[in-house]
Amino acid sequence: MKDVKAYIEANKDRFLNELFELIRIPSISAESEHKPDMVRCAEKWKEFLLAAGCDKADVMPSDGNPVVYGEKIINPAKPTVLVYGHYDVMPVAPLELWRTQPFEPVIKDGRIWARGADDDKGQSFMQAKAFEFMVKTNQLPCNVKFMLEGEEEIGSPSLYGFCEKHKKMLKSDVILVCDTSMIAPDVPSITSGLRGLCYWEVEVTGANHDLHSGIYGGAVANPINILCKMIAGLHDERGHITIPGFYDDVLVISRAERALMAQAPFDEEAYKKDLDIRAVHGERGYTTKERTGIRPCLDVCGIWGGYTGEGSKTVLPSKAYAKISTRLVANQDYNKISKLFQRYFERVAPKCVRVKVTPCHGGAAYVSPLEMKAYKAAEKAMETTYGKRPIPTRSGGSIPIVAGFERILGTKSILMGFGLGSDDIHAPNENYPLQQFFKGIETLPYFYEYFAQN
Amino acid sequence: MKDVKAYIEANKDRFLNELFELIRIPSISAESEHKPDMVRCAEKWKEFLLAAGCDKADVMPSDGNPVVYGEKIINPAKPTVLVYGHYDVMPVAPLELWRTQPFEPVIKDGRIWARGADDDKGQSFMQAKAFEFMVKTNQLPCNVKFMLEGEEEIGSPSLYGFCEKHKKMLKSDVILVCDTSMIAPDVPSITSGLRGLCYWEVEVTGANHDLHSGIYGGAVANPINILCKMIAGLHDERGHITIPGFYDDVLVISRAERALMAQAPFDEEAYKKDLDIRAVHGERGYTTKERTGIRPCLDVCGIWGGYTGEGSKTVLPSKAYAKISTRLVANQDYNKISKLFQRYFERVAPKCVRVKVTPCHGGAAYVSPLEMKAYKAAEKAMETTYGKRPIPTRSGGSIPIVAGFERILGTKSILMGFGLGSDDIHAPNENYPLQQFFKGIETLPYFYEYFAQN
Repeated sequence: MKDVKAYIEANKDRFLNELFELIRIPSISAESEHKPDMVRCAEKWKEFLLAAGCDKADVMPSDGNPVVYGEKIINPAKPTVLVYGHYDVMPVAPLELWRTQPFEPVIKDGRIWARGADDDKGQSFMQAKAFEFMVKTNQLPCNVKFMLEGEEEIGSPSLYGFCEKHKKMLKSDVILVCDTSMIAPDVPSITSGLRGLCYWEVEVTGANHDLHSGIYGGAVANPINILCKMIAGLHDERGHITIPGFYDDVLVISRAERALMAQAPFDEEAYKKDLDIRAVHGERGYTTKERTGIRPCLDVCGIWGGYTGEGSKTVLPSKAYAKISTRLVANQDYNKISKLFQRYFERVAPKCVRVKVTPCHGGAAYVSPLEMKAYKAAEKAMETTYGKRPIPTRSGGSIPIVAGFERILGTKSILMGFGLGSDDIHAPNENYPLQQFFKGIETLPYFYEYFAQN
Repeated sequence: MKDVKAYIEANKDRFLNELFELIRIPSISAESEHKPDMVRCAEKWKEFLLAAGCDKADVMPSDGNPVVYGEKIINPAKPTVLVYGHYDVMPVAPLELWRTQPFEPVIKDGRIWARGADDDKGQSFMQAKAFEFMVKTNQLPCNVKFMLEGEEEIGSPSLYGFCEKHKKMLKSDVILVCDTSMIAPDVPSITSGLRGLCYWEVEVTGANHDLHSGIYGGAVANPINILCKMIAGLHDERGHITIPGFYDDVLVISRAERALMAQAPFDEEAYKKDLDIRAVHGERGYTTKERTGIRPCLDVCGIWGGYTGEGSKTVLPSKAYAKISTRLVANQDYNKISKLFQRYFERVAPKCVRVKVTPCHGGAAYVSPLEMKAYKAAEKAMETTYGKRPIPTRSGGSIPIVAGFERILGTKSILMGFGLGSDDIHAPNENYPLQQFFKGIETLPYFYEYFAQN
């Protein structure tokens, strides 16, 4: 790949300005008021794909937000890489914790600060610019297809159907995904596993309307107290999840493999200091990296009920709510887990309340074998630009559709992400270091080169 | 008291129109944006007191919202009744559950629907109109003082100091309070006891910022999960509160007195049906009326943390909050309870989180002896207008300042309320039956008559 660094240097301001155009569109998939922004963002992507060198690009309908598809077929006999990314972003609340406006990107301290700067506008835009470089310098070694969806952050509900419907169009030899992180700027790594996900909203109802907490307090069930008790009961004293059958299918990792994983650099003191916590907290018998890498977990992502305004209001509320998610590992089936949770949560509810469990979304865990050709090409590409061999790591995060691709399209994915743990994706003050952005654009063409060889 | 019914009949529309003027002022003491409304409401009360027949009335400063004071001294040798009420109201959230606008009173189905219709604008306005009747018909048998505060719903933080400062001005033989309920429209009762109150806001902090629930989930404490566990631990399996020392000072009620209390009419099936609950829920070994009347309780009045918007967001939040209140009984000291809770809650917090407990307000329980002259006068007044003897009941609610009056002014209060359990005070769709409003105006003058005798 000749002159990739020079090409980046010559075009870096344009790259950033184009990325900022994407970031400025508040494409929050979880909030229905942003429906028009989803379409605007998809149209903008189509424009950029054509400009980067696609022969054709379209904004295609799905059952939900549109999917952007583009392709450049140089020779049907050559291998094909399908690039997957997503143009939707997470909600931005709590807004008051942002130091800059989430949808007005700012460059400061060598980072781009904005919602989507990393996840996944920044990372998927690296893919577009790496492709542009190869096209414009006549070095594209294989066919390329692009698929960008607008519902990843809500669990890709429509993309499964889209893939079923367009199997032929999406046929490829590997799916290249830049939506994960590496260990550190100078410690390249490739994500060899992802956790799955299962998410529910629960509603606990006591009396049919809010009551005076003095007149009724002590005699009528308080749905917040009950919900807290039910949530508390989901873990035992050892940090195990108590849902019967929850661990039945968990892939047990051998002592040997755990020993290998333990070699990845990890400084727990620095980790605690960075998060300003006095102690880590999790399942007994596992290290921090194991707790996020090879073990499932259960977290309340949100809770609300009663009076939450200023000052004090004495009320015995009628309802309490929580959003609860589990991260799953191979070989847990999220449909099975979803039913296990629902059944258990409804069963443990005392008679004095009514409980409603609404499954939101879910996805399976994914494992990328280190022996596959695409993994080796990614490894070699990173070795070329970083000067050291990347470490395989298991991410605690989830990209549920990646397991879906394997099931529906029969194609494995390679997770070659350039994010960092400090990027605060999904949180206030999301950011993406410029160094990672440009290093990604520099590295990706080598993946194509090595993957297309032999 | 001659012609009281005729006076009410002749003036009823005016009474309601005047009350509606008070209700339309959104005097929510818990929300600082309503500060100007507090002053407007106090000024309106001053106007009404003068019109009703006070010789003088003033809006007086306190450390917080102003206090309205008015008086009519007919003869210093005669007894003096100090009327206490409050012009502030509870917040109105959740607004979407109101069937009418909370600050635009509507008369429907024989009830006034509005925030404050009962608590305490409706009930304290009965006092003003009963007084007006006695003045205008030359039947006022004793001296009357009025004190209306604007902070009852937030625990009367400034009224204690106001009473200390104005002991002489507030000197009286009894304090007459209309801020409680009776058993049913045809079952008159007098509140012979009130529960005390203690209220805290708690904050649990995990990491210093919101985290990605996949990348960190399972390894870093989730403050919502931890808060739920801490709240769950505040009750044991028997419904007992677990805070060490919490029950130490609770006045134990004799079997004989419990048997007497059990004679008050109470239909548990109707109670459950009314609230649409399958089971009551509370401390083992006590009846529903005992649970709210003679036993303390602990309720979470509000909880919030993480993502509470539409759809699903996978986040491991940095903070979780709850508003927690206890109702206290004689002889629990709320200052002692406040410290016990704070110490306990901070002590049981695991090392992986930080906990902050902020005491909000509190007040002692109150017991009104059935033998006192004012109780007998109230009993006789209700017997006169209802044709049956009122039952003494203990309310589960709290008016903390009532215990404060006894301590600071050395004066007992009589709690002669005309509210009903169905008035939904503190909740959406607060209402006050017209029948109760007018019956209150009719009954109160007899209290004055009997109290002023001998």
